[in-house]
Parts: sequence; C-alpha cells; structure tokens
Amino acid sequence: MSARTRGQVRVVGTGLLGTSIGLGLSSLAVDVVLDDVSPSTLALAVDYGAGRRSAEGDAPAVVVVAVPPDVVAHVVRAELERFPDALVTDVASVKAGPLAALRAAGAPIERYLGSHPMAGRERGGPIAARADLFLGRPWVLAPHADSTSEQAAVLEALALDLGAVPVRLPAERHDDAVAIVSHAPQLVSSLLAARLVDAPDHATDLAGQGLRDTTRIAGSDPALWVQILSANASRILPVLSDLRDDLDAVLAALADPAAAGAQRSLADVLAAGNDGVARIPGKHGVDLRTTTLTVLVDDRPGQIARLLTEIGELGVNLEDMRLEHSPGAPIGIVELAVTPEVAGGLEADLQHRGWRVA
Amino acid sequence: MSARTRGQVRVVGTGLLGTSIGLGLSSLAVDVVLDDVSPSTLALAVDYGAGRRSAEGDAPAVVVVAVPPDVVAHVVRAELERFPDALVTDVASVKAGPLAALRAAGAPIERYLGSHPMAGRERGGPIAARADLFLGRPWVLAPHADSTSEQAAVLEALALDLGAVPVRLPAERHDDAVAIVSHAPQLVSSLLAARLVDAPDHATDLAGQGLRDTTRIAGSDPALWVQILSANASRILPVLSDLRDDLDAVLAALADPAAAGAQRSLADVLAAGNDGVARIPGKHGVDLRTTTLTVLVDDRPGQIARLLTEIGELGVNLEDMRLEHSPGAPIGIVELAVTPEVAGGLEADLQHRGWRVA
Repeated sequence: MSARTRGQVRVVGTGLLGTSIGLGLSSLAVDVVLDDVSPSTLALAVDYGAGRRSAEGDAPAVVVVAVPPDVVAHVVRAELERFPDALVTDVASVKAGPLAALRAAGAPIERYLGSHPMAGRERGGPIAARADLFLGRPWVLAPHADSTSEQAAVLEALALDLGAVPVRLPAERHDDAVAIVSHAPQLVSSLLAARLVDAPDHATDLAGQGLRDTTRIAGSDPALWVQILSANASRILPVLSDLRDDLDAVLAALADPAAAGAQRSLADVLAAGNDGVARIPGKHGVDLRTTTLTVLVDDRPGQIARLLTEIGELGVNLEDMRLEHSPGAPIGIVELAVTPEVAGGLEADLQHRGWRVA
Repeated sequence: MSARTRGQVRVVGTGLLGTSIGLGLSSLAVDVVLDDVSPSTLALAVDYGAGRRSAEGDAPAVVVVAVPPDVVAHVVRAELERFPDALVTDVASVKAGPLAALRAAGAPIERYLGSHPMAGRERGGPIAARADLFLGRPWVLAPHADSTSEQAAVLEALALDLGAVPVRLPAERHDDAVAIVSHAPQLVSSLLAARLVDAPDHATDLAGQGLRDTTRIAGSDPALWVQILSANASRILPVLSDLRDDLDAVLAALADPAAAGAQRSLADVLAAGNDGVARIPGKHGVDLRTTTLTVLVDDRPGQIARLLTEIGELGVNLEDMRLEHSPGAPIGIVELAVTPEVAGGLEADLQHRGWRVA
C-alpha cells in the first residue's frame, strides 16, 4: 500500500497521538520528522519507530501539532512562523478557541487548518501509541473562512493513510458535538467512579462489566482533561445542566417510589436512555439505519460461511454482523444488520433456503 | 468435567438468566427441568438445549427461580410449597425485600436462600442466553438467620459449576453494594445516553468508544429496571445524592472556568474518578477462553463470506465474531475469537493467504 500523503510530515509532540500518527505514516514510508520539548519522550518515539529526529534542513509539507490543549495555539503559531511553506494542523479536542487565539494574534491562519481525530486511550505517552489507533475512527477537519478545500484534501489524505474517516465540520459545530459525545461523558464517568472511592470492599468486589464500562474513561489523565473541559466549558454546561434536571427527577422518584408518577418518572429516564443509545451509529445497541435479522445456525465449521456465501449470492451487503456462540449449545446465533429496504426480502429468501430466522 | 451439583435442578423462568443456567448445567449432564409461564419462551429454551420440560414426577433437589423482581417472592413461595424437599433460591438483583416478604407471609424460609449472580446483558430472553454468562463473575449467596451453611454450600457448588465465584453476603449488605456498583451506574448511564436523544447527527456521528462504553447499559430493559430500582430505592438515593452534590460543583466550575478554584474543582472530580476506578478489582470481565484476531477486509459483498469459507477450510471453529464497519470507511474490521491453541496457526495461515491481520 502506498501513501496518499505527499512530502515530509513534521510531528510536534510525541505523546499518544503524535507517536501514533508517526507510527502509522512511517509504516507507509512517509518521511516523518519528530520533535518534542522532552528529550526522553522524543527518544522513546524515535526508538519506537515513529520517525526520525527533526534536524536542520527539514522541509515539511505538513506540520501536525500534537501538544497539550493549553499550548496548542502558541505552538501552532511558532510552527507557522518557522516553516513558511508548510500547512499546519493540530489534533486538539477543542477547535474554536485555538482558531480564535491564532486569529487574534495575527498568525497566518491561511496556512492553518485544525483537526481532531476521535481516538484516544486512557493511557498517554509514546509507549501507549499504536499505528492503528485511528482505524475506522472519525477524523474531524475544521475548515474556516481563510482555509481552502485543497488544504482540507491534503489533511484528508493524511487521515485516510492512518485508516481514519475524514469529516469536515466547522470549529463551533465540532465543539458543540464533542461537548455531547466526549466531554460530558468524561465528567459523568468521573462523577460515577468517584462513588467508589469510599465504597466498602464487599461492594467493589461485586463490580461487573456494566460498572467497568461506565467508568473506564474515568481513568483518564486529570491534567489533560482539566484543560479540555475548561476550553469547552460553555458548551458542556448546558448538556450537564439538562442532565442535572433529569437527575433531580430521579432523586424525587427514589425518595418515594410508591408515590404517584414515581415509577413513570424512572421509566421515562430509562426509556430516554434506550432512545439515546439507539442514536449511536454502528455496532453498539440498535442502529436506526439498519434492521437486524437473527438466524440460528448449527454449531459446525462452515455453516456461517455457507450462510454468508448465500447472502452474497442474494446480492445483499451486510452493514454489521455478530456471531453469538454459547459453549455447549447445539446452535449459534448470527445477527445480521442490513439496510431496512432489503431486510424483508432477505428474511424471506433465507427462510426459503431453509435457514431458521428467529 | 463432572458436575459438583447433585440431583435434579428445576429452573423457573427461562429468560436470559434461567436459560443460561440451564445451558451451563446441562452441558455438565446435570438433569435440568425448565418451566415458564410463556409456552413460546419455554419452547425456545428447550430447543436451545437448556434442559427438558418440567413434568409430573419431577423431584428437584434445587429450584432456581429466575423471574422478574416483582413476582420473585410470590413464585419462591409457590415453589417452596410445591416441592417440600427442595432448596429454593432466586437470582433477583435485590435481596432484602423478597426475604422480608417471604418471612412476613410465613413461608418456610428455612429452605430458601437467595442468590444473585452478577451477570447480565442489555438484552433479555432465552435467545440472548449463554452457558458462559457467569464465567468469572461473582455469585452472591445471601444467608439469613434461618438458613444453614450446608445449604449455602449446595448453591456454591451450582455457582462453581457455572464458572462463577461464590460470595456469601447478607441481604442488606448485598443491597447496599449493588446500589453502588450496579443500580447507580444504570441510572447514570441512562441519564447520559438521554443527552443523545435530541443531539444533531453530526454529533452522534462522532461517537467514539468512550461514549459507547459509558452508555452501553443504557440499552437495558426499562420495565425490568423500574422494578429493580424501586425495590432498592432507599439505598440508591444517597449514592446519587452525593453524585448530585459533586455535579453541582462541576456546573459551578464550568459556568466560570476562570474563577478562583474552578480548575481545582474540575481536577478534584477527575482525580476522584481515577481513585474510584483504581478500586475496581482487575480482570473479572475479560474472556478467559478465547484469543481475538483482527482482520481488515474490503467493504464489498462476499468478502466476509470468503474469509469465513477459508477459515472453515482451515478447520477452525469460531467461538465468536464481530464485524465493525464505520460508515464511509473503505475497510471493515472483523474480530475473530478463537481458542488460544489455534490462534497462532490461524493468524499465520490467513496472512499466508493474503489477509491483512492487524
């Protein structure tokens, strides 16, 4: 596979994101040069194979600034000045603030186009980096009045090289979106996990997958997140204020569950949760854009291949699929997600061919 | 492997938990008889291999009541009367209420010992059942003043047969514990997911793993959970009241992030989240039996069928499989779960055949 990215790429900041970008591009033989204020972090990223050390004579076509949020605007501005022929981007989680700061500082923002790959891990640093960190993840590009579509295309090529899915979204709309899908969840997860600090051992010993999942991101780095949350505070505030109103209704219902309307109040919150989960695209929960068929198959090698071969013969493209196989059960369960238009026909065709559709 | 469980086991209620118990015990050749008020649910569980239909002459040593919370006490009492030689348990999520109700009704509670396996899924019904649902999960036994240690040992044997980790905990302490580790997380996840109901598409399209994990259990059945939450309301209330107090501090900080103490306030919540996550004991939730291979496939009809056909040709049986397909991405990601013994050979064989194994 050859790279879509043309020319040298300079990565400033070799933490989790910067090193992951370097690893991914280097694996495609892109010339990646790395820089970091910490010599030991830089050495680790170089050793790890993310690129070579920056040096005199570097001539990057693209500079990717992957530094903590509170210094993004400052570093982007310095890079714009140092490399007057380069397109400069950053990967920070908040986009409106840095753009406004650069504009206010009189930086040459016609060569700046912010981005935000929707990928991360609870652990940071180059050692946590992965070339496939961005695989299948949205990579937001935030065009502005002074950027060009050609510049966006250059960054889209870079995102595609890393396996990401480029999405163009203006800074304000991006920041509104991440307040809902990333920043509010971070705070809610932290608030929930905080309940465990003083919990007795016999309680934490009962922790199941639900608690683990809901609190996983509460393990994130507080120093990084204070910066992110502060930078997007005005957009997170209304999301969590609404949540607080709903929480107050829940508290009232729990205080007197036998009161008129209390059960209904709890059911409303739980049902709204169902509806919210259904809005998330993809493998999780129900996808409104797809219909799921459940097929029972014998638990023998080749059965699922035969099913999928027949679906291919019927000309149907699967949107998603999941196999469930309970050890000891004589049958497996295959869930097929297809577009609603083809679901009815597929069900009839499969039943006609002798498959058991539940 | 031979079963520790002695004698016939009767399972009343063939939903997710009852059918999973039946599947697991049947795989160990325990004589399992099944009953359910719904003939179609019962038929599905029998077809699935969870046991045989209950009949005249059944003589269970143990009766497991796996019915919705609001009818647990009623059904347990009926089973105690119908099978005067059996030990009766239930698997409901709240333990103090049923015990008190049985005691108040004058039921022979010297043959009742409640239990609660800490396992579940967002989806219910026999079709979602799995013999390995309880693997590595705590299984609480709630001894009381009129139960014996020998009875607890009988249920511990059953739990061990299902791969669970038995834990003895009095009903009140159990109910306090699950308020923190299960019931509060359910409500918080629902409250968070509810933010997505009116979110714009460009926001939900950016959903990442953090949002998916924090909202996964918000997909749970509202009717079931209203019963659970109502039955344990007095214990959930203080947990969520504390959370509301912390949330109010967060809202104040977000309203004026530049104010003195605001950053500190956010950092405190995030750090408390770190500390809370650190209280969760490690690794109960990982799948102990399988290794996962990740294969990248082109997003065209027939590709996955070809992959699975080749896996079948290689004589490998899949334990589980999941397809991830990000809309607009040129590739899909297939996660194949196989037994550890065959994983290495399969990876090499697939790469040899030209598949991209990540």
